[in-house]
Amino acid sequence: MNIKDIKNPQFLKSYNKKQLEDLCSDIRTFIIDNVSHTGGHLASNLGVVELTVALHYVFDSPNDKFIFDVGHQSYTHKILTGRAEKFDTLRQIGGLSGYQKRYESEHDPFEAGHTSTSIAAALGFAYARDMNKDNNEVIAIIGDGALTGGLAFEALNNIANLNSKVIIILNDNNMSISKNVGGLSNFLSSIRVSDSYDFMKKSYKDIMSLTNIGTKIYNTSSKAKEELKKMINTNIFTNLDIDYLGPIDGHNMEDLVRAFTKAKNSKKSIIVHVNTKKGKGYLPAELNCSAWHGVGKFDAESGTLNKSNVTSISEIVSNTVYEFMEKDKDFVTITPAMINGSKLEKIFEKFPDRSIDTGIAESFATTLACAISLNKKRVFLPIYSSFLQRAYDNINHDIARMNAHVVIGIDRAGLVGEDGDTHHGIFDISFLNSIPNVVICMGKDNEEIRNLLYTGFYKQCNPFCIRYERDNLEFKKTDFKEIKVGTWEYLQKKDNVSNTIISYGTDVTKLYELFKNDDVNIINARYIKPIDKNMLKELIKTNQKIYVYENSIKTNSLGTNILEYFNYKEANNKVRITGIDNSYVTHGKTELLKKQIKLDMNYIKDDIKDYIKKS
Amino acid sequence: MNIKDIKNPQFLKSYNKKQLEDLCSDIRTFIIDNVSHTGGHLASNLGVVELTVALHYVFDSPNDKFIFDVGHQSYTHKILTGRAEKFDTLRQIGGLSGYQKRYESEHDPFEAGHTSTSIAAALGFAYARDMNKDNNEVIAIIGDGALTGGLAFEALNNIANLNSKVIIILNDNNMSISKNVGGLSNFLSSIRVSDSYDFMKKSYKDIMSLTNIGTKIYNTSSKAKEELKKMINTNIFTNLDIDYLGPIDGHNMEDLVRAFTKAKNSKKSIIVHVNTKKGKGYLPAELNCSAWHGVGKFDAESGTLNKSNVTSISEIVSNTVYEFMEKDKDFVTITPAMINGSKLEKIFEKFPDRSIDTGIAESFATTLACAISLNKKRVFLPIYSSFLQRAYDNINHDIARMNAHVVIGIDRAGLVGEDGDTHHGIFDISFLNSIPNVVICMGKDNEEIRNLLYTGFYKQCNPFCIRYERDNLEFKKTDFKEIKVGTWEYLQKKDNVSNTIISYGTDVTKLYELFKNDDVNIINARYIKPIDKNMLKELIKTNQKIYVYENSIKTNSLGTNILEYFNYKEANNKVRITGIDNSYVTHGKTELLKKQIKLDMNYIKDDIKDYIKKS
Repeated sequence: MNIKDIKNPQFLKSYNKKQLEDLCSDIRTFIIDNVSHTGGHLASNLGVVELTVALHYVFDSPNDKFIFDVGHQSYTHKILTGRAEKFDTLRQIGGLSGYQKRYESEHDPFEAGHTSTSIAAALGFAYARDMNKDNNEVIAIIGDGALTGGLAFEALNNIANLNSKVIIILNDNNMSISKNVGGLSNFLSSIRVSDSYDFMKKSYKDIMSLTNIGTKIYNTSSKAKEELKKMINTNIFTNLDIDYLGPIDGHNMEDLVRAFTKAKNSKKSIIVHVNTKKGKGYLPAELNCSAWHGVGKFDAESGTLNKSNVTSISEIVSNTVYEFMEKDKDFVTITPAMINGSKLEKIFEKFPDRSIDTGIAESFATTLACAISLNKKRVFLPIYSSFLQRAYDNINHDIARMNAHVVIGIDRAGLVGEDGDTHHGIFDISFLNSIPNVVICMGKDNEEIRNLLYTGFYKQCNPFCIRYERDNLEFKKTDFKEIKVGTWEYLQKKDNVSNTIISYGTDVTKLYELFKNDDVNIINARYIKPIDKNMLKELIKTNQKIYVYENSIKTNSLGTNILEYFNYKEANNKVRITGIDNSYVTHGKTELLKKQIKLDMNYIKDDIKDYIKKS
Repeated sequence: MNIKDIKNPQFLKSYNKKQLEDLCSDIRTFIIDNVSHTGGHLASNLGVVELTVALHYVFDSPNDKFIFDVGHQSYTHKILTGRAEKFDTLRQIGGLSGYQKRYESEHDPFEAGHTSTSIAAALGFAYARDMNKDNNEVIAIIGDGALTGGLAFEALNNIANLNSKVIIILNDNNMSISKNVGGLSNFLSSIRVSDSYDFMKKSYKDIMSLTNIGTKIYNTSSKAKEELKKMINTNIFTNLDIDYLGPIDGHNMEDLVRAFTKAKNSKKSIIVHVNTKKGKGYLPAELNCSAWHGVGKFDAESGTLNKSNVTSISEIVSNTVYEFMEKDKDFVTITPAMINGSKLEKIFEKFPDRSIDTGIAESFATTLACAISLNKKRVFLPIYSSFLQRAYDNINHDIARMNAHVVIGIDRAGLVGEDGDTHHGIFDISFLNSIPNVVICMGKDNEEIRNLLYTGFYKQCNPFCIRYERDNLEFKKTDFKEIKVGTWEYLQKKDNVSNTIISYGTDVTKLYELFKNDDVNIINARYIKPIDKNMLKELIKTNQKIYVYENSIKTNSLGTNILEYFNYKEANNKVRITGIDNSYVTHGKTELLKKQIKLDMNYIKDDIKDYIKKS
């Protein structure tokens, strides 16, 4: 069967084992080929080909509901539900999303992008089903990494409470993006290697029959027997009153089908523990699945990833933190499972005793950072902007309220491109701006980013948030200099000029390049909060017309702070704020997205010229 | 010893069992007597008297660190650390806080108010201790209710990862404010009643020795023996590689001291499971600990709580929802452990099949609500404003991004009084205002609150947030009428008047009472988002001077929305925004707090008159 001809998963029902296995092979080739041209999530998708085919063989989507945690591993699901022909548009503007999307298909009942929501969602679907007295199955497919997020545990804990049957497929590859950590991960590994469990799980009887005396005790009816029986088949899941089945070989079609059928026939909520291998079937990805988690275009034949020669801003930040940690023994770095994403590899290698990977647990990482900092340690906590919102309460209730000296690195600030609406880093200013004590800043270039970090760690003691975008800059070691909190700078100041452009981050550098020959002032508002009131007073005095540019939701951002101050001072300055309107932004190349929402520099150039002319 | 003479816990060290028990009795009397005059948390504090005395007997605070989860149960700790003499100021402005506060005592190393942070904090303190090569103990005291919050699980999961010893005292009373739910709670109960565990925990040997044949098998060395041994002593905590000790009788001083000593001597992180009784030693509180969780003044002798005759706004809301649920079978109510607080008792009693208490799990409750609503159910999700911030990501990433039709009841909006900075509901507008698709509103009286609820459930399909304060109003059944989303109303409109007051909620009613005889317009901005642009255009046309009053952080609130719109329309209206500055507000009676931060109606009246005069 041609993969692109698949309209829905019905055809699978008549397939035999051999046909299913051949299909998996074809799908794998299709994914590798397509992702090599479009980029996307590779290793995770290659790991769940058999698992997904077996699910669609046993269950009936869309009547039965598949909810993929995060959703980045749903490529095979998309292929089987008639979306293969659109795979050349994957993650492009107007094209197929890299995640489940309700608007894309009736086979996508729920959407995500952040981890650990799938079990909660599945329970919601199951609860509504039971209200309707329907009898479809609801299946959450969740990785062992996502299972370490507190939300997943809250849902597991509520399974006994809600009494609506769900099936949880635990896709255990012992990895999030990098290797998993924590007690649960150790526990799953212990099951994996233990010989006391297998596909059908060794029962009390099996174990007892290992010895003659065991057989005897099994055959007597005694209190001990009952006690033991109760205790043997327990683990963390059964303690929570969820049946457990596993571990299953996630690349053995027969085992998968048997297990899923058993889960389907179960009356009770059940967790099916499936061991899979990230990158399965594509050797380069199997050997280094972290590097092949999310990839750009690559050469499929040779298995070589396009390496870039430029330095990401995340790397500039981590290089700078590395320099601090070399000299400062009271310095700790904490990441929620983003050693690779936030470019912390060198830090974790060199300072293992002062580097903590909490797994996917942003809330915990943030409260932990708070507590460590209260013990007079300097703490660096880099988190992607979009994921930081999971720690809002920990920032407000813990860090800010106790005014703890934690430096939060807000990675991937601004539009991030192909991952789309669940990943754009456009809300962080808006939710941090109203929290007392918090400083928010963003550097325009390598040197300023380094100096802001230096200031945050060594020249002030407030919660200090430094944002940086998904972009590249040249890295250079420079001497450190304090940038006083709440001070801005002119990048261009001309006499007798009545217009002023204000922005921050690398955007202000770009605006400078565009307007350095024009009669307009340009201010680098590197501190978004607190604002530079002295400079604003000057702008009021000379009645400057202000143009604010922000790659961020414009409600409650820098422009808002300026407006509120102007209003408080009863100033008459005209202000135009250009930023992202109060709406979600889709997926696609960042530059194209910016064009679509009129945030690209070509549009801005004209808009500013038009604004200036209006005087 | 006179309780008020206690300066620090040193004196305990020389006490014998009898003296410790007598002290507990005195402390209990002291707490009952004091709380009957000041109000405060009673049942939870009575439950942990012996537990806290035993902790201070075995450990050495402040060198050893006690971190009480939430902190509302730390009264005995406060008494033993020299704060008894200030107990008559409990929860009053300038007085003792009802929670741990770092500024209050060196014996309070961390602060909370929200649940489930203590284990994360303890790990942070332990990690810093190990960096310093110090050897003090760090002890988290956490209830079984707080343990169901995801953050607590994230921390438990990281104990094996961080490798810094902490002691966790699980204060298991099978209650949060009301009865606990979920798999973990069932599991803890099963330990409680099971005869297979006891204080020193029956070992493999103990069980095997129940029968002759068991004794034989114990004495042979076999594979089965090893297998069984490994399996017998496991539970959810040991699966996470945390030693487990318990359950202990939490009111038996000898058992407590033995257990805590064992925990102190342990090299590994350990959880000590202590069974306590909420309200212990005060019969009215033992019999109905939900009612006696947080109390106002009461008569200690007769054990009668002062009952109020007025209806809280929470009750108006839940009465109205009850009316909907009676007629509408597709209607679900979800609460994170706040059946009592949000006055949902009647709903849960009458509609048990459509009412869900998720336990303390705001994130889960919110994503669950989202998923149920996507199945065409109407979902009501009441959460206290301050706790709603724990679900920021679930609101943004799940509900708002998928534009799910969930009605969020934001209970305790505005200043809440004696619980103080961790509980004031002053941030919700600021963090919700920038989230796309979300509607935010607040009703001025019984009828408007009912009509807003009706509109939210039956006349629109967006995420709909209705705020209501901790206040009372008269309840009356009224006919339902739609209030179009984004429309305001004039409470007073006069000709040739150039000043307009804008507010919402019961505050706008109070402002109307104050200014109904003055030459000023009064607008009820019942929709904070979206704003009423038509009405604002009118205000621009007649160049009204605007006064905005908000019992909320004023950054990113209604005033901001008005300013941004005026700026966009290049309007020249003067605007004064009065609200809460970007800072935390302490504890005390709401009216006194408002006076302190110049938000009380007496001040506002003068401020408005002054503003009007300025024209």
